[in-house]
Amino acid sequence: MDKLREVFDEDLDALEIGAAILGTGGGGNPYIGKLRCREELKKGRRIEVIPLDELPDDALVVSLGGIGAPVVGVEKIEEGQECLRAMRALEQELNVKIDALISSEIGGANSMEPMLTAAQAGIPVVDGDGMGRAFPEMQMCTWSIYGHTSTPAAMADEKGSIIVIRKTRDEVAVEKFARANVVTMGAAGAIAMNPMKGDFVRRAAIPYTITQALELGRAVQKAHREHLDPIQTIMTQEGGRLLMTGKITDLERHLKGGFAVGQVTVEGFGDYDGQTGRIDLQNEFLIFRRDGVVEVCVPDLIVVLDADTGLPITTEVLRWGQRIAILALPSHDLLRSPEALKVIGPAAFGYPEINFNPMPAKGS
Amino acid sequence: MDKLREVFDEDLDALEIGAAILGTGGGGNPYIGKLRCREELKKGRRIEVIPLDELPDDALVVSLGGIGAPVVGVEKIEEGQECLRAMRALEQELNVKIDALISSEIGGANSMEPMLTAAQAGIPVVDGDGMGRAFPEMQMCTWSIYGHTSTPAAMADEKGSIIVIRKTRDEVAVEKFARANVVTMGAAGAIAMNPMKGDFVRRAAIPYTITQALELGRAVQKAHREHLDPIQTIMTQEGGRLLMTGKITDLERHLKGGFAVGQVTVEGFGDYDGQTGRIDLQNEFLIFRRDGVVEVCVPDLIVVLDADTGLPITTEVLRWGQRIAILALPSHDLLRSPEALKVIGPAAFGYPEINFNPMPAKGS
Repeated sequence: MDKLREVFDEDLDALEIGAAILGTGGGGNPYIGKLRCREELKKGRRIEVIPLDELPDDALVVSLGGIGAPVVGVEKIEEGQECLRAMRALEQELNVKIDALISSEIGGANSMEPMLTAAQAGIPVVDGDGMGRAFPEMQMCTWSIYGHTSTPAAMADEKGSIIVIRKTRDEVAVEKFARANVVTMGAAGAIAMNPMKGDFVRRAAIPYTITQALELGRAVQKAHREHLDPIQTIMTQEGGRLLMTGKITDLERHLKGGFAVGQVTVEGFGDYDGQTGRIDLQNEFLIFRRDGVVEVCVPDLIVVLDADTGLPITTEVLRWGQRIAILALPSHDLLRSPEALKVIGPAAFGYPEINFNPMPAKGS
Repeated sequence: MDKLREVFDEDLDALEIGAAILGTGGGGNPYIGKLRCREELKKGRRIEVIPLDELPDDALVVSLGGIGAPVVGVEKIEEGQECLRAMRALEQELNVKIDALISSEIGGANSMEPMLTAAQAGIPVVDGDGMGRAFPEMQMCTWSIYGHTSTPAAMADEKGSIIVIRKTRDEVAVEKFARANVVTMGAAGAIAMNPMKGDFVRRAAIPYTITQALELGRAVQKAHREHLDPIQTIMTQEGGRLLMTGKITDLERHLKGGFAVGQVTVEGFGDYDGQTGRIDLQNEFLIFRRDGVVEVCVPDLIVVLDADTGLPITTEVLRWGQRIAILALPSHDLLRSPEALKVIGPAAFGYPEINFNPMPAKGS
């Protein structure tokens, strides 16, 4: 298949579906970003995509996106140029010109933000991302895991605020400062991180995840058109497996330090009658337990879909009584290395007692 | 009397006493800053002072100091160059050379910080400050009140972190971002604010407050040496009045959003037998009530002294059973204008029902 070179208006709906599935419930809803991208395209701007392996060694690539609590992002609408302002602030800070953008996380809203900003700035977006899914904290990017320093990082909000995190002790501290500032911004803002060189991005990025999201979304669209089972389609496309179908019977979700945290309890139906599922979440779905026993956990992807339509349900729109299907999808190998598991394994989320037991890799 | 041109080792104890009195219980304890200044002087560095009226029109003057909760400042010792690093970060941000430093607040630790940094940087400190006392928030500086924009502001901590608040909607937002960042720093850090021009500083600074603190401290020292009443000395020196002598019978004090907030209840003794005093505090002493009736409030200074030694007691060392004297000292006219009262009057501290009834000005 040809490499992806550009994203067109007619791709955006599919991208939205694919990105929301890969968001594992988090990363914010890509819907508003999609509408914004559409607006930019209508103005004659283009979303150019550069294939990961064509990125020049010395290209300056910036990972950027929205930061905040998805619950808030739904209601506190961005002004629309937050990421662009964060990017310009970073250019000013370093006195450089940025060559390309890349998503920090393909899952959720941050699939769209770099495309939107790339269109506004007239530069390409790289086909890849720093998570291959969504995660709640910035140091959980492969950039940080594989040695990049995120500072200086520039933040912007809809009120014109610009904050530069120029230097910190470590990558976790970048996250802590960014989180403190985004809470002050009203729990939604944009952040652009210290440029990376192209050769590093080629090694550290989860590869071709715009293409992956697009194809995943297209497969779901096709299943809908042809009255096939979209859940089966997603599993086939991503090498995943169905964990449970059931009804949400309990839901705890609250804002804590800028995160949406909580638990979802599901009573199984169909083949899963009599079973109880529980998902722990922190912006994203982290852990799936069947009858109290951990079965799937981060970094593998836990995806919640509407049991009838197969469309993904993000953590902020979960509600009591929803009939859902819970899927597990395998994470990329770059997320499964020992250095990655230190940062995005279950222990990093406060579950030191859980061992990551990887599900079979995609295509294996 | 000759204008103050330099601060010497033998001045530091007096300055510490004067600054602590003018701190109205807050601004942090100047003790550690004093020891640091002493160390710098021992290394052969100098604390040069430029009289306010000799400041050239175009001199770039930076207001800088520590920020955080005094309760934390006592235990989390600074590394010693936080303010210098914040100043250098600001110079880098603006590509300028800073000519002189000025204290944001003469009360408490921030009397010493600019002197320490001035000695380290080899530039003078201006005889004046932005509060004439201490206040809990940055927008309460006369710089902000009289029209200066504090951004860009640079922050530093003992771990090497540098945060630049490049742009915000307004001065209150600078404070909110700075507070969020200093909480992340561990509730103690340094901040240097957008340089001011000399002609603005000459108009907006509370004038000659280093001299004032020094003379106040010397008067207390003299009273001690000559076995005079130090409390009477302070009142005479500053044009203040004694509100009450009594014993602390109740004390509520907790950390809230980086502030020490609470209330002190005092049962009067001596001439005040049978009376109950109550002081509300937010880092500093804000309101004094006698038997439930407000008698003195911000911006006038409420000072708590050890009833026997006349030495000031800061909010973080208040304790049950202390025998104290409570004094009121008049604030400077620059703090009493309508625009100032909007920011530092009782309503700004959450007391819209209290009217500021100024006590007679010093020397009146």
